[in-house]
Amino acid sequence: MLKQKRIRDYGVQVGRLQPGKLNSITDVEGVTVGHVTLADREIQTGVTAIIPHQGNIFRDKLVASSHVINGFGKTMGTIQMAELGKLETPIILTNTLSVGTAADGLIEYMLEKTPEIGKTTGTVNPIIGECNDMFLNDIRARNIRKHHIFKAIESASNEFEEGAVGAGRGMLCYSLKGGIGTASRLVELDHGTYTIGVLVLANFGMLSDLRVNGKPIGEELKAAILEEYEEKDKGSIMMVIATNLPVSERQLNRIIKRTVAGLSRTGSIITEGSGEIAIGFSTATKIPHKKSTELHSIPTIHEDDMDTAFRAVGEATEEAVLNVLATADHVVGRDGNERPAFKDLIEKHSISLVDNWD
Amino acid sequence: MLKQKRIRDYGVQVGRLQPGKLNSITDVEGVTVGHVTLADREIQTGVTAIIPHQGNIFRDKLVASSHVINGFGKTMGTIQMAELGKLETPIILTNTLSVGTAADGLIEYMLEKTPEIGKTTGTVNPIIGECNDMFLNDIRARNIRKHHIFKAIESASNEFEEGAVGAGRGMLCYSLKGGIGTASRLVELDHGTYTIGVLVLANFGMLSDLRVNGKPIGEELKAAILEEYEEKDKGSIMMVIATNLPVSERQLNRIIKRTVAGLSRTGSIITEGSGEIAIGFSTATKIPHKKSTELHSIPTIHEDDMDTAFRAVGEATEEAVLNVLATADHVVGRDGNERPAFKDLIEKHSISLVDNWD
Amino acid sequence: MLKQKRIRDYGVQVGRLQPGKLNSITDVEGVTVGHVTLADREIQTGVTAIIPHQGNIFRDKLVASSHVINGFGKTMGTIQMAELGKLETPIILTNTLSVGTAADGLIEYMLEKTPEIGKTTGTVNPIIGECNDMFLNDIRARNIRKHHIFKAIESASNEFEEGAVGAGRGMLCYSLKGGIGTASRLVELDHGTYTIGVLVLANFGMLSDLRVNGKPIGEELKAAILEEYEEKDKGSIMMVIATNLPVSERQLNRIIKRTVAGLSRTGSIITEGSGEIAIGFSTATKIPHKKSTELHSIPTIHEDDMDTAFRAVGEATEEAVLNVLATADHVVGRDGNERPAFKDLIEKHSISLVDNWD
Amino acid sequence: MLKQKRIRDYGVQVGRLQPGKLNSITDVEGVTVGHVTLADREIQTGVTAIIPHQGNIFRDKLVASSHVINGFGKTMGTIQMAELGKLETPIILTNTLSVGTAADGLIEYMLEKTPEIGKTTGTVNPIIGECNDMFLNDIRARNIRKHHIFKAIESASNEFEEGAVGAGRGMLCYSLKGGIGTASRLVELDHGTYTIGVLVLANFGMLSDLRVNGKPIGEELKAAILEEYEEKDKGSIMMVIATNLPVSERQLNRIIKRTVAGLSRTGSIITEGSGEIAIGFSTATKIPHKKSTELHSIPTIHEDDMDTAFRAVGEATEEAVLNVLATADHVVGRDGNERPAFKDLIEKHSISLVDNWD
Repeated sequence: MLKQKRIRDYGVQVGRLQPGKLNSITDVEGVTVGHVTLADREIQTGVTAIIPHQGNIFRDKLVASSHVINGFGKTMGTIQMAELGKLETPIILTNTLSVGTAADGLIEYMLEKTPEIGKTTGTVNPIIGECNDMFLNDIRARNIRKHHIFKAIESASNEFEEGAVGAGRGMLCYSLKGGIGTASRLVELDHGTYTIGVLVLANFGMLSDLRVNGKPIGEELKAAILEEYEEKDKGSIMMVIATNLPVSERQLNRIIKRTVAGLSRTGSIITEGSGEIAIGFSTATKIPHKKSTELHSIPTIHEDDMDTAFRAVGEATEEAVLNVLATADHVVGRDGNERPAFKDLIEKHSISLVDNWD
Repeated sequence: MLKQKRIRDYGVQVGRLQPGKLNSITDVEGVTVGHVTLADREIQTGVTAIIPHQGNIFRDKLVASSHVINGFGKTMGTIQMAELGKLETPIILTNTLSVGTAADGLIEYMLEKTPEIGKTTGTVNPIIGECNDMFLNDIRARNIRKHHIFKAIESASNEFEEGAVGAGRGMLCYSLKGGIGTASRLVELDHGTYTIGVLVLANFGMLSDLRVNGKPIGEELKAAILEEYEEKDKGSIMMVIATNLPVSERQLNRIIKRTVAGLSRTGSIITEGSGEIAIGFSTATKIPHKKSTELHSIPTIHEDDMDTAFRAVGEATEEAVLNVLATADHVVGRDGNERPAFKDLIEKHSISLVDNWD
Repeated sequence: MLKQKRIRDYGVQVGRLQPGKLNSITDVEGVTVGHVTLADREIQTGVTAIIPHQGNIFRDKLVASSHVINGFGKTMGTIQMAELGKLETPIILTNTLSVGTAADGLIEYMLEKTPEIGKTTGTVNPIIGECNDMFLNDIRARNIRKHHIFKAIESASNEFEEGAVGAGRGMLCYSLKGGIGTASRLVELDHGTYTIGVLVLANFGMLSDLRVNGKPIGEELKAAILEEYEEKDKGSIMMVIATNLPVSERQLNRIIKRTVAGLSRTGSIITEGSGEIAIGFSTATKIPHKKSTELHSIPTIHEDDMDTAFRAVGEATEEAVLNVLATADHVVGRDGNERPAFKDLIEKHSISLVDNWD
Repeated sequence: MLKQKRIRDYGVQVGRLQPGKLNSITDVEGVTVGHVTLADREIQTGVTAIIPHQGNIFRDKLVASSHVINGFGKTMGTIQMAELGKLETPIILTNTLSVGTAADGLIEYMLEKTPEIGKTTGTVNPIIGECNDMFLNDIRARNIRKHHIFKAIESASNEFEEGAVGAGRGMLCYSLKGGIGTASRLVELDHGTYTIGVLVLANFGMLSDLRVNGKPIGEELKAAILEEYEEKDKGSIMMVIATNLPVSERQLNRIIKRTVAGLSRTGSIITEGSGEIAIGFSTATKIPHKKSTELHSIPTIHEDDMDTAFRAVGEATEEAVLNVLATADHVVGRDGNERPAFKDLIEKHSISLVDNWD
């Protein structure tokens, strides 16, 4: 990725599976990510767009599924995704009170690209995820505009920044500066090598609960910074999972449910005020919007092959969260509220992240 | 209600239970309904707001639940409602491509009324339902503005119009003109008499399937109008259920699931492109947003008392759909598309709605 | 079927689609049904087995799904069916307090046929459905034995009896004698003609609610028999849906959910003490238990083709319930409790079932 | 508990909250646990019964909820539990192929204690959980008999054995000997101190994934025992959660969902062949089977108080799994298959469980 120091650069290696080339959700062929970041005093917010493939997503839909770990959240579009098992738009992440604007912007984008929507065919189901960035951002001001949605989509590329950027600009993670992180894993099966990539918008966790690869770094850090910063906990996490595994929506749902394993290993207790929602899609099969006169065949893996995928998604989620911490910069925002950068703190307090078990 | 001729005025009596005073969702004490109707050539759309009680709903929440009969729809807010079992805003109904704007408008309304949101407490979960009115309305133009949401809420009252008004302006029902309808039933239990009210935004159904109290009126009508109008089917229905029954969210969920019985008796086969979603709330208990140091007790009915509630919601849903038909006016809209009024047709073709079984 | 007078023989034609050759669940190629009936004074109960295909179902599984309309029931096996989307045993129906024995019998049957289970491969997931026949049967005595399960499976055939037989022996339907009924519909699509068959174990409904094709026969009957029999309501319905439509488990789930439309049109209000559960399977694709090194392709229909399937399952469910009534004989059982036969009553009271609308 | 060396006795302290007096599910007033263990060469299996309160559970039901983490399992009774939110029997755990017998035995037990079932009131919903012990036990022989269910229930007491006992006799945990474990936590709120207890039947996990309080003990152990034992992975976990917190079934469901956090922290990737199911109940309110003429009030905690409960259930689940490992003895069973005891191995290989981070 873009020359940022990531968790692996600290010597931390999560799990056993190999990451993809960029160790990013964009290792899944066709997936791109774009950010718009607003960072100006009280305004610390933004938009992150995940583009699932480079064609017209409405006309060529993807197998998709969502899973709610904790539902204190305002994610849009999951009812239809559950009914039809399909994704037909980019996925937009932003702050909680901007979901309406984001939906409106994404609808407008889809209408522009797809003149038949609402004219000769039905409507479109926009997918919007969110976390609450009110601690650092003046969320009541709702500074996101429709053009930011367009810009995030249009600026999407294979390599993208992590940390305090895009929708992650104002987020917290384990009481430190949070935001965007990503990671990927390769899944080797008899019939091929596949990729699972995870992108998280991390805005959750109590510092004292943080574990890096099992090591209770959070307790150590809390002791170190106690006088400067109090713990801030209210939070959420959005997780977007991309894969080129040939799977049915049921199989995909099984896979994305395992994000919770990675999440828990970083120390999460899944707090009550948290919207923890996973949205996944598979690029393996494109499902045409238009009916043909033929049956449509969906290639799927055998259930016995799922375990590697499960391990992969857990590992990638865990590493994506740690990449948020590794990359996010210190931010000062609303009312002078601020959150320190994990990377600054571990340097300042000379904390080693590497296991040194005995 | 407002002097409109309703299905009972045709001699049709649905079921065995007594309706409330107005035979309306507003028979549930505290519930009001407001419309904004846009009707100008290509623009045939609107907004309907259901206000669940007359205080600050965010601060005094209600037990709530939603149920998806068919999920080809874009309803917002149900994830958090499922997690927390609570309603904290008015419910807004509008056209499918305006859900973003409606959410943004409702958020803005809630922020104005509740300065602590996003400042000293968390965010708010707006509830938006929708149906697709693209046949009569230029839905791509997205003519709904935020001020329409405010106006619908602020104009809410105990008595309101049914038919081709508010969110129902551009909707279809059994291939005829659809829209808004309501009905209610009294539920007599040992400890008191309660009310269940249903409001529907009806935009579903094939004419030939329509049954009025069992009678296959649709076949008769289809034969009569075949040369003028073809059947139009793509459709959805939003159902809002209000009650003052003291119920838990689980019990309420059981009640609102029974809307499907009434719906089916009008002839619905629950088509695949249909968003059929029920959202219910109980006004019996107000649940404070603010934590107190005490436990909060939720009075609930015994499960054995549910059957009367189940019968009530089925009957009220069936009658609410028939009230849509009885009240909706003929509308001409987008590209000259038009849908006739049921009331005009049965008069013109001298069709009796009353059972005349032998 | 077996020379019984069915609802069509009374001139009642439900819906618009054509039934299959036998108008039975066994119109789906490979499906057979077997009964064991115990009828001796206090003992009025039995077992019905539905065999989904004629091979080893554990080794060649079918796409399957279940749906709970109301969950006051003890159906076994649906957790794994939801997770894996597959059926791997026959489906056994019996009385509520015999589900344990039925499960044990079905497990034993599967172990005999499949020596690798529990030895070199994992365990098996038995599917058992039930209704409560305590009004006519001494259900506490639990007279079902494991050998009855074997016998029901082994006696399964293409043609089978309906009415007060098998698991239906002691059941009630609309306060009259209930039991087993079936019906089917043809689904014509671009790429072929498919069949959907429904078998019901009907044990639900208030007589006064009964409608035959919309006509309120129940009210008429109630008036006629009031002095002899009171209404009995506690009840449930198990619905088994078979099809050869090529569908994913998600699509199949959408289809089986539409049983409720047919059910409601017969007059059900879906009472609270009712276990109303649908279990469906598709014979279109066999999914091998054993992993191969290849991907497995599942042919599926386009979502736009679902509506005909939805109409079919609603019609077949409605007709299957009416076939229960048309075929079930008068039964006297526990404590002299008895339930009259619908067919006897309509003859005795000269009630016409045919619409005679004006 | 019964003088067994548990994980705390090794110096391992999981989490921050205080355990109850016995650090056991039986710290919740009224809860008792009983085992029947069958251990004779090929037969290595058993039954564990959890009694939720000491009265007649059918007549005085408890608020209850279940949650499926992974559904490759045959647990019975969850459909009705979801619909009604209540527990009305003891909970029985046993091996997978004995669920039928266990259900039959539990039904018989309930009929004996409650003569009105199936006579003057409806039927009863038995709750049976299971894991597959086929590696050590001849599961095809189905050696569990109905009288074992009675005996397990009748022998239940406040203190009980952990490890390779009861339903846990033939189970595996992280490829070592698994079985039964328990732990509890105190939840201090404004209005009182409450207890959450967890009992697990652990039969899951790959040795190399095992972590004790974050420390990768599994990798260390695997290296040590590699020549003697291969990893065995196929597995499941049943988790029973008891609490005296006054909660609704929705709130209880939120709590039991957090078992996954503790589970994940021990190293689980939630494998595909695993039945991972949580069943919870609250003893705070007894809900009478019999309808009264009054409303029934359910005291509930405020949602803001849930986080402590969430932390508690995660910690107790994690510790309960570690208690399985700490207490389970080496067992040799079917075909000479055997699994070593964790406690023997860490002693033999001088492995320290205590964190020694730097």
